Amino acid sequence: MSSSAQRTYELDRAHVFHSWSAQSLLDPMVVERAEGSYFWDGDGNRYLDFSSQLVNTNIGHQHPVVVAAIQEQAARLCTIAPSYANDARGEAARLITELTPAGLSKVFFTNGGADAIEHAVRMARLHTGRPKVLSQYRSYHGGTQTAVNLTGDPRRWPSDNGTAGVVHFFGPFLYRSEFGATTEEEECALALRHLERVVEMEGPSTIAAIVLETVPGTAGIMPPPPGFLAGVRELCDRHGILYIADEVMAGFGRTGAWFALDHYGVTPDLITFAKGVNSGYVPLGGVVIAEHVAETFATRAYPGGLTYSGHPLATAAAVATINVMRNERIVENAATIGADVLGPGLRELAERHPSVGDVRGLGVFWALELVRDRGTKEPLAPYGSSSPEMNEVLAACKRGGLVAFANFNRIHVVPPCTVSETEAKAGLAILDEALTLADRHTV
Amino acid sequence: MSSSAQRTYELDRAHVFHSWSAQSLLDPMVVERAEGSYFWDGDGNRYLDFSSQLVNTNIGHQHPVVVAAIQEQAARLCTIAPSYANDARGEAARLITELTPAGLSKVFFTNGGADAIEHAVRMARLHTGRPKVLSQYRSYHGGTQTAVNLTGDPRRWPSDNGTAGVVHFFGPFLYRSEFGATTEEEECALALRHLERVVEMEGPSTIAAIVLETVPGTAGIMPPPPGFLAGVRELCDRHGILYIADEVMAGFGRTGAWFALDHYGVTPDLITFAKGVNSGYVPLGGVVIAEHVAETFATRAYPGGLTYSGHPLATAAAVATINVMRNERIVENAATIGADVLGPGLRELAERHPSVGDVRGLGVFWALELVRDRGTKEPLAPYGSSSPEMNEVLAACKRGGLVAFANFNRIHVVPPCTVSETEAKAGLAILDEALTLADRHTV
Ligand SMILES: Cc1ncc(COP(=O)(O)O)c(C=O)c1O
Ligand SMILES: Cc1ncc(COP(=O)(O)O)c(C=O)c1O
Repeated sequence: MSSSAQRTYELDRAHVFHSWSAQSLLDPMVVERAEGSYFWDGDGNRYLDFSSQLVNTNIGHQHPVVVAAIQEQAARLCTIAPSYANDARGEAARLITELTPAGLSKVFFTNGGADAIEHAVRMARLHTGRPKVLSQYRSYHGGTQTAVNLTGDPRRWPSDNGTAGVVHFFGPFLYRSEFGATTEEEECALALRHLERVVEMEGPSTIAAIVLETVPGTAGIMPPPPGFLAGVRELCDRHGILYIADEVMAGFGRTGAWFALDHYGVTPDLITFAKGVNSGYVPLGGVVIAEHVAETFATRAYPGGLTYSGHPLATAAAVATINVMRNERIVENAATIGADVLGPGLRELAERHPSVGDVRGLGVFWALELVRDRGTKEPLAPYGSSSPEMNEVLAACKRGGLVAFANFNRIHVVPPCTVSETEAKAGLAILDEALTLADRHTV
Repeated sequence: MSSSAQRTYELDRAHVFHSWSAQSLLDPMVVERAEGSYFWDGDGNRYLDFSSQLVNTNIGHQHPVVVAAIQEQAARLCTIAPSYANDARGEAARLITELTPAGLSKVFFTNGGADAIEHAVRMARLHTGRPKVLSQYRSYHGGTQTAVNLTGDPRRWPSDNGTAGVVHFFGPFLYRSEFGATTEEEECALALRHLERVVEMEGPSTIAAIVLETVPGTAGIMPPPPGFLAGVRELCDRHGILYIADEVMAGFGRTGAWFALDHYGVTPDLITFAKGVNSGYVPLGGVVIAEHVAETFATRAYPGGLTYSGHPLATAAAVATINVMRNERIVENAATIGADVLGPGLRELAERHPSVGDVRGLGVFWALELVRDRGTKEPLAPYGSSSPEMNEVLAACKRGGLVAFANFNRIHVVPPCTVSETEAKAGLAILDEALTLADRHTV
């Protein structure tokens, strides 16, 4: 390791407390350099970034136009309080609302995804005057108290004292259907009936909102069957419940569309975003608000805020990112790579590797379920945990020069939206090698 | 207004949803330019910034060294996931822990103050295994659900459903003593007795933490009497309760010391910070963690995180800011300006203006209580609200070219820590003028 990397490693171990981790069990890779679809460790090894970090660098690392825009805005004005009108803030809001469905015209800016969720839920509760919020098992909505209570994975448990006003239900997920369905159509119908019954049992008049990742991400990249989201919209309308679409991970190109919602033609009341909005180059998130919800806070104060709401540097990065994505047709690239390279390539891997139980996704947003047995679908790592076998596969990827996103028994193939065909194929080849290790653990 | 400012105004009104506000009643000032202690509106008028925005630009606007550091880091590496070791992240953590009391050696980075509080509270609950958290009336801790429930001002009410596990108590505040005290010594003793009784009544074994702004900021800049914080520390030790010091506003030079804690010689278990750590040039906050608390998460995972934890651009800005504050003796400047200019100057104003009921503060962190009657202390605006009289005073400041921070019946004089003697005196002169309007409403 270079002496600078060595020093970085030592500083990290001495002083940095890491997310979601047992601190003394960590051995973090040093990363001080990245470009496009690649980053380098402290020994100078290059890795193909099939994780987009935490699925946020949709334009890849260090896009020169966005870097220049950040530098320019830094020279002009780094920060200004939320109460003022500022050009970067206003233009970012305009561009974002230009991309969202008609009727969603206001943006409340936050620093990330979790606080976007916190504020969206508050808006819904105050707009409806109702206390409860429904969300899915197999979901992730963030690390602050309300957001983590909405989360439908084991990361909620340590913070769950049952008082957050959240009720979880099962969403559509054919591969491990809760409803015994065997077709997407049946799964859709049964999942909608289940949600309808949960609403009925909980009491529609007690429910402020249903919060849904349009395509659940960390929990497994499960595109909903056609008709499901339209059914949710209809159910919400029937009962005066708000529909909050969490597009923090799925938004801004990830699925090969600006928003994952675009594939389904539905219009929610609130959309939360972060990550891809500026690829995380500067911390930014927010809530896009439908006019009828904004109206609730026209003459009555919205009781929420934060020091960095509409931060000029962060919103200037969003303006540059959205413009770059348009000019360079980056969303279209994500769609094409998904349809022509990743989709076919991953399905082809599944054919040859018995350890691959399922392939799901769209755009540059794909999951492989690794199983010990395709018949029983027994996962290669238990729900909520890892396994030596999964670690073996991931280590093989790393040795091959590929970093993918892993969760439980799944490998997520989530490169930047800018990934080239050559890079995508190179990544698939490394994955192909690594999967042979997983195959050894199948029955 | 320039046509660019006009466009910014229109974009804002069309698309930006603002913090803590009734949206249709807003008429935001356009700000696209700022430097040092000044910023400019859309008509080119210059204002002396005695608000430091939301009390965050401690090094003033657009400090060239920090701007250059942001530009340099942007060119190197904007973002990387929290799991990696990164040079900017590690060095920021090292510098911060160098400034905090011995034993506080780890930093968990967040995006701002609210999420720092959310995570500090989670750490305390899991470390102690206890549910409740105590905080002060007359306090502000942030806008997310747990943070706003800890908050002891009316901004909590719309989000308060009584299930956050928070209990509020009265802190020391001689000017409006809860305890009928007439001296600081007596106020200290009675406030400590009160807190001790609240702990007794709530049950020490149910209390995870006491969260205190070292010097409550937005709620009125009330430096605690000598001995109070030492008493809190002792009470916490006696009962195995963690002491969380919220230094989001008071930290990083504001009080003329690196942390407000430095004036009182106490060592908390957790310190939350944001704002001054990099003057808000890039969104950043965090929790500094004592070794015994970090130890709880050595082999058991800390169940919390966020995509931008330890963001390279944000932490690089912190490194540059801390170094600049050291090299240019900016904290010392804040102390000197407070002791030699603002303190004496504000007390002199209070002598001449019957509307000034109290002057409190230290460093560049001062509050004036405006009252109708010094005898009854009747405020010039009711608790939790504004008044035409207060608006008149603030408008006069603005006409004079000064923007101060206002809350209820108070004017906060909180310029950058870099403010010069000349600027401080110019601000006092404008304030002097404006206060003559307040005087007319006194009995
Ligand atoms: C769907 C979704 N919502 C919310 C969040 C939380 O965002 P953040 O980590 O910026 O708080 C995430 C983060 O992964 C996410 O994937
Ligand atoms: C003492 C204190 N704590 C926490 C916060 C919340 O910080 P943020 O606005 O960055 O969420 C503030 C903001 O003013 C504060 O003054």
